[in-house]
Amino acid sequence: MPEPLHDVLNIGNAVVDILAHAEDDLLVGQGLTKGSMRLIDADEAERLYDLMGPAIETSGGCAGNTAAGVASFGGKAAFIGKVAEDQFGKLYKHDMQSIGVHFDTSALKGGAPTARSMILVTPDGERTMNTYLGACQELTVDDIDADTVAASAITYLEGYLWDPPQAKDAFRLAAKIAHEAGRQVSLTLSDSFCVDRFREEFLTLIRDGTIDILLANESEVHALYQTADFDTGIRALQNDCRIAAVTMGEKGAMVVSRNGMEKVSATPVDTVVDTTGAGDLFASGFLFGQARGMPLADSARLGTIAAAEAIGHLGPRPATSLSDLARQSGFDI
Amino acid sequence: MPEPLHDVLNIGNAVVDILAHAEDDLLVGQGLTKGSMRLIDADEAERLYDLMGPAIETSGGCAGNTAAGVASFGGKAAFIGKVAEDQFGKLYKHDMQSIGVHFDTSALKGGAPTARSMILVTPDGERTMNTYLGACQELTVDDIDADTVAASAITYLEGYLWDPPQAKDAFRLAAKIAHEAGRQVSLTLSDSFCVDRFREEFLTLIRDGTIDILLANESEVHALYQTADFDTGIRALQNDCRIAAVTMGEKGAMVVSRNGMEKVSATPVDTVVDTTGAGDLFASGFLFGQARGMPLADSARLGTIAAAEAIGHLGPRPATSLSDLARQSGFDI
Repeated sequence: MPEPLHDVLNIGNAVVDILAHAEDDLLVGQGLTKGSMRLIDADEAERLYDLMGPAIETSGGCAGNTAAGVASFGGKAAFIGKVAEDQFGKLYKHDMQSIGVHFDTSALKGGAPTARSMILVTPDGERTMNTYLGACQELTVDDIDADTVAASAITYLEGYLWDPPQAKDAFRLAAKIAHEAGRQVSLTLSDSFCVDRFREEFLTLIRDGTIDILLANESEVHALYQTADFDTGIRALQNDCRIAAVTMGEKGAMVVSRNGMEKVSATPVDTVVDTTGAGDLFASGFLFGQARGMPLADSARLGTIAAAEAIGHLGPRPATSLSDLARQSGFDI
Repeated sequence: MPEPLHDVLNIGNAVVDILAHAEDDLLVGQGLTKGSMRLIDADEAERLYDLMGPAIETSGGCAGNTAAGVASFGGKAAFIGKVAEDQFGKLYKHDMQSIGVHFDTSALKGGAPTARSMILVTPDGERTMNTYLGACQELTVDDIDADTVAASAITYLEGYLWDPPQAKDAFRLAAKIAHEAGRQVSLTLSDSFCVDRFREEFLTLIRDGTIDILLANESEVHALYQTADFDTGIRALQNDCRIAAVTMGEKGAMVVSRNGMEKVSATPVDTVVDTTGAGDLFASGFLFGQARGMPLADSARLGTIAAAEAIGHLGPRPATSLSDLARQSGFDI
């Protein structure tokens, strides 16, 4: 098996984040569930945008954020996702390529615009996402570059890919190519509502060996196994997955494998400014560590370092070099 | 004279800022003058963008930032500027209207895209701007809404309006309408290179009474009067202008009128993150104070409060309520 060209290939929805501060009253008034992601159509996107305050725009999307994190750790990252040929698509591509992420998925011409997520950040730092998928609806198997998949130590897929109609076929094709090349496949469950939409399919992917490494947070574990008891969920994960890493907010993270489980503390954060991207950046550290053959707990520690960085500022991608932060914490990377 | 509907009408280039951190080496390698603004064409915009790191996008532009500052002080602000009918134009309009700024200039159809400024923020917090004017080139006298001008206590114009071919006619028309309605007209010199381009015209505007209130920084005063001696420049200003407010970075600001001059200290800043918008927000505080009939020194103090806020975070517009900050400093607004 040749040395991988990329540590992590990230496949997901290419989304521009539109981030604005909002009071809790707005969420309540609009019936929005704090901390969740909901899908909206173009009309609802217009309506909600009119209610939002002044915003900043920045590249986002689960897998895209994870790619940015891997690059910031000094890893080699690739990305597959669908933007449109418009200003948002251009800035998305720029932000990827300018940090050295390999990204050459063809842009959609003459169809829907680049996806955008209107993210309301409440005073507690929690983010509530409202995503119009736009061009992401058009990701297909044709966008899966087999050479890139085969050349990546880990192919990482976001659960949100189950929403666009043809993306799950792209997902399955990528997983097949990866395994045929002797590589690993990872999935993030993305969001508890996403798990509610696709529970059986996700469980099948996990149990039939399509997924080698599962990323999830507490509420997604609860949703996946429909249990209020976290320990029950974790034991079920241990039975179903080869490797799972579960984030638990300020309580840190739990890594689970057939050999056992281990808890890793959260990296302290002075002020929670904006949790957007925290889970995605945890994934970047964990997967970078796994791609480089680190122990599970060390990989999770890299994840908590990256998550803490994301929480300390507005926006989902690293504002500081993650490799510098890792070295300050004693990692030799 | 009827009560003004708006405290400040801001007329300027409607520009989306593309902000990225950059090392000094990039500026040196590209021959860029730190702290300045240069105009670039579409090709140079592409070339430079390829060299820039990942960015955040946010509404900017001198006069637009000042409008946002006035609104944040609780003032009534209006804006006239030209965007295109594209994604950047839409976000620009959203950001204005969502903070209550009156903005209904028609968007340009089928021409150049919305203006963008690629802003390189070096580790010292200094910003270096590279602006592609795009749709701003098409601002004309037809965009000056006479009712809005006549209903604004102060009409504020940016010196950068001398760059687009027809905007100076729009500027002159607005000034004429304002004075006929018994209102005041203010100008910012914008940038020392802008002063170098249009020195004689700016001096004429100041000396013939078109301008009632001049905003400038130290280097613009040096450029305007072609003197290395600041006191010489200030005395010349006092002779030429009814009111001038000159910002001096960490040394504060100087207010100058026929009756005398007074120095106001800078508001302390813990860390200089990004100076983008500092001058524009100083103007917002100063002009808000003037529109509300405050003394010159108090108006300048509001300016320093706003400038300090802008310097403490990435991006040119207030991230915190300026009226709250002013009240914390003892202002009853």
